[in-house]
Amino acid sequence: MRFEIRKRDAAGRLGKFTTNHGTIRTPTLLPVIHPKKMIITPKEMQELLGIEMVITNSYIIRKDNNLRSIALKEGVHQLLDFDGPIMTDSGTFQSYVYGDVTVSPDEIISFQRDIGTDIGTILDIFGTPDQSKEEASEGVSTTIIRAKESMKLKGDMGIALPVQGSIYPDLRAKCAAELGKLQADLFPIGGVVPLMEQQRYPELIRVILAAKQHLPMHIPVHLFGAGHPLIFPLAVALGCDLFDSSAYIKYALEKRMIFSWGTLHLEDIYELPCCCPICSQFTAQDLKKLPQKEMIRQIAFHNLYVCMEEIKKIRNALDNGTLWDLVEQKGSENPYISDALHILRNDTQKQWLETFEPVRRKKALTYTGPQTIHRPILYRTHQRLLERYPLTADTLFIIDEKEVSYADAKNVTISTLFESSDDIDIIIDSSLGPIPLALYEMYPFAQSVFPNTLDQDTLEYTKRIFSAFTKNKKIKYLKGTQTAVQSIKNSMTQTESSFDHQKIKAIAAMQFGLQAATVLFDGNITLVKSKKTQKIRNVFVDNSHVLSFRASDGFFTLKKAGAFQLHKALPFPSLRVIIDDEAAPFVKEGKSVFSKFIIEADPALRPYDECLIVRSNDTLLAVGQCLLNPLEMMQFSHGQAVKNREYFS
Amino acid sequence: MRFEIRKRDAAGRLGKFTTNHGTIRTPTLLPVIHPKKMIITPKEMQELLGIEMVITNSYIIRKDNNLRSIALKEGVHQLLDFDGPIMTDSGTFQSYVYGDVTVSPDEIISFQRDIGTDIGTILDIFGTPDQSKEEASEGVSTTIIRAKESMKLKGDMGIALPVQGSIYPDLRAKCAAELGKLQADLFPIGGVVPLMEQQRYPELIRVILAAKQHLPMHIPVHLFGAGHPLIFPLAVALGCDLFDSSAYIKYALEKRMIFSWGTLHLEDIYELPCCCPICSQFTAQDLKKLPQKEMIRQIAFHNLYVCMEEIKKIRNALDNGTLWDLVEQKGSENPYISDALHILRNDTQKQWLETFEPVRRKKALTYTGPQTIHRPILYRTHQRLLERYPLTADTLFIIDEKEVSYADAKNVTISTLFESSDDIDIIIDSSLGPIPLALYEMYPFAQSVFPNTLDQDTLEYTKRIFSAFTKNKKIKYLKGTQTAVQSIKNSMTQTESSFDHQKIKAIAAMQFGLQAATVLFDGNITLVKSKKTQKIRNVFVDNSHVLSFRASDGFFTLKKAGAFQLHKALPFPSLRVIIDDEAAPFVKEGKSVFSKFIIEADPALRPYDECLIVRSNDTLLAVGQCLLNPLEMMQFSHGQAVKNREYFS
Repeated sequence: MRFEIRKRDAAGRLGKFTTNHGTIRTPTLLPVIHPKKMIITPKEMQELLGIEMVITNSYIIRKDNNLRSIALKEGVHQLLDFDGPIMTDSGTFQSYVYGDVTVSPDEIISFQRDIGTDIGTILDIFGTPDQSKEEASEGVSTTIIRAKESMKLKGDMGIALPVQGSIYPDLRAKCAAELGKLQADLFPIGGVVPLMEQQRYPELIRVILAAKQHLPMHIPVHLFGAGHPLIFPLAVALGCDLFDSSAYIKYALEKRMIFSWGTLHLEDIYELPCCCPICSQFTAQDLKKLPQKEMIRQIAFHNLYVCMEEIKKIRNALDNGTLWDLVEQKGSENPYISDALHILRNDTQKQWLETFEPVRRKKALTYTGPQTIHRPILYRTHQRLLERYPLTADTLFIIDEKEVSYADAKNVTISTLFESSDDIDIIIDSSLGPIPLALYEMYPFAQSVFPNTLDQDTLEYTKRIFSAFTKNKKIKYLKGTQTAVQSIKNSMTQTESSFDHQKIKAIAAMQFGLQAATVLFDGNITLVKSKKTQKIRNVFVDNSHVLSFRASDGFFTLKKAGAFQLHKALPFPSLRVIIDDEAAPFVKEGKSVFSKFIIEADPALRPYDECLIVRSNDTLLAVGQCLLNPLEMMQFSHGQAVKNREYFS
Repeated sequence: MRFEIRKRDAAGRLGKFTTNHGTIRTPTLLPVIHPKKMIITPKEMQELLGIEMVITNSYIIRKDNNLRSIALKEGVHQLLDFDGPIMTDSGTFQSYVYGDVTVSPDEIISFQRDIGTDIGTILDIFGTPDQSKEEASEGVSTTIIRAKESMKLKGDMGIALPVQGSIYPDLRAKCAAELGKLQADLFPIGGVVPLMEQQRYPELIRVILAAKQHLPMHIPVHLFGAGHPLIFPLAVALGCDLFDSSAYIKYALEKRMIFSWGTLHLEDIYELPCCCPICSQFTAQDLKKLPQKEMIRQIAFHNLYVCMEEIKKIRNALDNGTLWDLVEQKGSENPYISDALHILRNDTQKQWLETFEPVRRKKALTYTGPQTIHRPILYRTHQRLLERYPLTADTLFIIDEKEVSYADAKNVTISTLFESSDDIDIIIDSSLGPIPLALYEMYPFAQSVFPNTLDQDTLEYTKRIFSAFTKNKKIKYLKGTQTAVQSIKNSMTQTESSFDHQKIKAIAAMQFGLQAATVLFDGNITLVKSKKTQKIRNVFVDNSHVLSFRASDGFFTLKKAGAFQLHKALPFPSLRVIIDDEAAPFVKEGKSVFSKFIIEADPALRPYDECLIVRSNDTLLAVGQCLLNPLEMMQFSHGQAVKNREYFS
């Protein structure tokens, strides 16, 4: 089995998971197939809904003489008539519902192996939310013991080791850390169905965070029993890759229709608020009149369409870099999701989430409500402003963002505006907090869409950041800037100005750190600008091309001369990705770096950061762009980790 | 033509609009059909998408010799091969785009009449957002003159008179008031396409509000050129009934796909985030590979499916009473919609919206974010608390809502708790503001779902209401109430208590006013309770059945004896709906009251309020339930206005 990351957003991954029965795309939903009563067959799911993997219950198969003998003789794929990957559950949930099961942990793991399951699940101990910590702890210990025993019996079968620990984050963490040491193929987060049924989302989120923060990164994580689209975006954003659902059928049996924002009983529906193939074919009145069995089947189809739409929305958002939008919007659809999101306002959680956060995105950062200001990208941006931004003057000139348009700001030459050429810091007081004018083209500052009227939470938060940023400085508000800027623009010269120098230094400091910014521009600076837009395109220092400027997000790409300077000046392992000597010849030919060849990486690197690719003896091989964060680079054994941009051949 | 209201929410109407070519359900979307190039035919739209009405352009038909001659000979329905209602536009938009048109107002209205259009549109003057007020005012005057002239020529054709006035609310208001005097069949709000294209939603909303507040209620309102689902819920909540869209095809020609929350270019899509029949049949990669013409057609289909899904969502929300949820959620999908929603926080707008607001709903009031506390139902509730709630004591006992569960509160007998039986007021300090314990079962107090952690805007708002409510009172916080309540419950007796009396008086005061509450209970009160739940079921005064209590929303229904008392004590026209003598015999047989028979109604009545149905000489005929608000009752000429509940035969 292998898992690799194709794209990412938040702590979510657009992945490829390869099993003995083919490769599936993640995140995905595994519909639960009841081996005795398939109201929709796996084949129909595959053909009509694009379902790539299903889950069934080995305990039920084993208990039924007929099913058992078919499964043992012909395999579970034959039994379900499905040629894609099949996961099986073990009876743990049955033991939670009925109190006990009539099979041993060893028997059930061997049985799953013998019927040819792609991923079998151990018989873990379901930790209920109402357990005492002692009970939960005992369950965790037993689960760990069983996991170790089961590893010996699994044979070639892939194995899922569920993380238990009830609602106690430290038990979840312990269980995750212990199971993480075993060579599992999947880590389900178990015992969470009651939390979801009771909409106890804040506790659910704490449980997911505790598990994810102690599990290895390179193994997919499955949220056991999560079948409602309400929870998918947030769970994916925290790093869950698989879901499984019997909800589509359970709800259908009660005539309840799933929607991305909640659930409605068919009897309460005047008009089907949906355009799936079922709801485009039937009216609510049509559905109500269908024979019972057919009605249930059609509702089950609808429920699966809606669930898969959410999965597709999420996969597209992972590709587009807009997953946080989806997550936050769910908060406006369900008050308990809103409560759960508050957990992510905590600095500890932000610090963890920040490590996965891409440095830039194609799409603008869009405000959804009071939660947006707490996105990890803004946490990072604010941290870097406070730590890295080179404020030069004692007095800061403040412009209210309502008085300056982006078009004005990006064209202004500050030296002309103030006649003094140095020691000027102009700060825009914006919806996102303080924005130095020198950074106004950089993501996410320019690429953000906020409303004119903000909520109080955001205002208070950005006010705090503003105070911290301007601490110990005098501040002076500039009024009527728009007119000033306009008159300056008219008299603007096209020569390079000290503002341009301030700008490139500021951007480099935010991107690579203050020391790097000093090193890169130590010499005679020449800026090459676009003739058309007058925007900086390339930066030369002593006639060497050190940086290129990307207009779309205001970030630099590192050129060979710049990389050479940084490599010389910055101590190991700053900005480095250290690779195995074995891979060096390939990198020198321009090949990208695969995870398995990575020995170490600067822990400060982030996805899509520029990096220096070096040998273990720190010989500089190439300039690259990180696709993973440092922890992932070291843990993953499949897929690309660093894109090779320019190499020293 | 006739228009009637079937159900309602906010200022939105679930309506039936009857034309010469059949009845359509509103709100709805009229796809724009280009008479020369139909990429999707009206028939396909009808069969596959449930489209009931379309719009086409009479100016284009008239300019083309071939089309003109077919239309004149065989009619526009034959031309489009569509047997449902067809609306035509007049060339106004073309005059906006191309500067001028080669047809006179008289010619185009006569032409529309002659081709058998169901609803023709006058050649009004398109008021652009960048016009000076003088220019806009002149355009309005010309539009009004043309409207009057066109009325003479329209014959049997239905006619649409667009409200113009650029971005100036007073001009919009004037235009609406003037046109409103004419016998139109539809009032489009025109000149708004540039506002929508530039996402200037706050200005758009001001324009809609100004128009709606001066148009008659009984004629449907059309938002001209609105074809993106982002704006549908808010526009419907403010009383728009029809939309028309060429967006589905215009966007398709640019390979742009519409989604409920925005638009994506096909090239930017990794996976289609949708489950419509098109997106369930094709992948993004499939679509990209289709021949150009076929790709455009499929995207156009998708765009229409998504638009119609939003319409269906809205119609279902109007039926369910959950339209505000949809409206507010759109604010989290688009920052400029969020800005537009802020306009509805203004007291003037709340006062207008409140008049349409149902007094109770089947579904809970669900928090979506900082906008929720500004819903008209909460505005009304807070106003009534301040104006009508009979606070008796000088000291108010305050319980934090986190310390009391609904289950506890609803069972407590306060007299036992405090031993003193009178002069006790217990107020719960809640997410919705102050809730007197006596009202805790009443909508929306008990039927609300708010998160545990609220936003600052809501907290500040409810704090202000709390201060106003407790002004001039001493307040005392009760701690550990849960335990107190629990011990009380155990020793509870089943006799009626003074709290029950306080409760029925408080509810009646909120529902009917303070004076009514005094009148209703003036005598010997007997409460009949449910044996099972111990909840009040019926209220008898001096052995007459005056009220029944509805457990689902905590409201009273008025019984005949109660109605008799109120009729005797409250001055005309309080609580009355006054009907034409002609209709009296039918009401006395139990028939409901149709709008056309209503002469007058108490302006304080609200949809779903209990009311007294009387003759013009104030003879009491029946007790009813309002289906419309007083203004609507008087203006509508079709449909039910008051449901007859109990009649004095």
